Amino acid sequence: MDRPLFLSVEGIDGSGKTTVVDFLVRRLEEHRIPCLRVREPGTTRVGERLRSLLLDSRLEGIHPWTEVLLYLASQNQQVKEVIRPALAKGTCVVADRFADATLAYQGWGRGLDIRAIEAVQREVLQGFRPHKTLLLDCPVDLALQRRSARTGGPDRLESESADFHERVRQGYLNLARREPQRFVVVDASKPLDRVLRQVEHLLESTGIGRTA
Amino acid sequence: MDRPLFLSVEGIDGSGKTTVVDFLVRRLEEHRIPCLRVREPGTTRVGERLRSLLLDSRLEGIHPWTEVLLYLASQNQQVKEVIRPALAKGTCVVADRFADATLAYQGWGRGLDIRAIEAVQREVLQGFRPHKTLLLDCPVDLALQRRSARTGGPDRLESESADFHERVRQGYLNLARREPQRFVVVDASKPLDRVLRQVEHLLESTGIGRTA
Repeated sequence: MDRPLFLSVEGIDGSGKTTVVDFLVRRLEEHRIPCLRVREPGTTRVGERLRSLLLDSRLEGIHPWTEVLLYLASQNQQVKEVIRPALAKGTCVVADRFADATLAYQGWGRGLDIRAIEAVQREVLQGFRPHKTLLLDCPVDLALQRRSARTGGPDRLESESADFHERVRQGYLNLARREPQRFVVVDASKPLDRVLRQVEHLLESTGIGRTA
Repeated sequence: MDRPLFLSVEGIDGSGKTTVVDFLVRRLEEHRIPCLRVREPGTTRVGERLRSLLLDSRLEGIHPWTEVLLYLASQNQQVKEVIRPALAKGTCVVADRFADATLAYQGWGRGLDIRAIEAVQREVLQGFRPHKTLLLDCPVDLALQRRSARTGGPDRLESESADFHERVRQGYLNLARREPQRFVVVDASKPLDRVLRQVEHLLESTGIGRTA
């Protein structure tokens, strides 16, 4: 591995992101590669306050552009305060969601102008993006089943309709087609061991498996 | 008055914004003009949560672009949820600060690229702005004296240096020069009755005084 990697894991709720992020972090640690796990929104003090605001299911009527700005605020704070400093000192970063999620959820999901969101992201993040992004693609009904197996009530985003999540899924696939060099699409409907094997291949392709 | 007005009052802390907003609202009510008072950040549920986050003096290390996005999020929510609906039903809106404050504070004050902030504002607010903006211009040392006469400790923005507030003041004057049709600059170092007389003139120029 020539440089510390910034990896992001994307997908709709119930696609298995947490399991995959756990696995990635564990494998990196086994290879003695310094590694930091972050989540979006969150991680920083500002980010965690925005997270609780954004996921608050009592907060109805929040405008889609308000959402974009709050997610981007969290991402910006995270990049400047955590991700860039970590990469600069040689630490890999594994992110549970990043800026692609804003395009998929607020762009395709809520119907905002994709190019307008991208223009705003460009001004703020200056083209900063993950080196590799793992998209866990999963049919919406299967993701719904997995989510309902979790304890606790749904948060504000989880309460959205199946149509909404289908638009988000298609948005993610669209992004992956536009940037095939960065995205690795994994069929997350397959059994867990097959999913994790594909994740292992991603790590090998970055040189991590080979140096072990 | 042909259409319901959206008025904003701008200026550094201690320039007398609250007094002037109070006066404007009272005068409009005396003329039996339906009128709504808003503050930025704030007013909406999301906005008030962002206000407490932004003014939290314990929240150090917040990046200037993070600030821009949070202020803009509050403004966007306020425009869509409160200001536009109010204007549509014929209610005037008087705002204690609006988007100009972001340019003055985060642009001139914190040194972010003014054009980049304006580009982001344009994508989100689509050119929506106050019909008239009252800039209360006041020397920084006088504003500081007035502020220290208030009870309670300073919030995060109030704790900034005099240099910072001077840059913000010059930023506001810059904005006023760029849009002389919209801005009315009032010398807020003058005694209160003279300041309020100038505000009265603004109201008259909008047709409110004449129709009374």
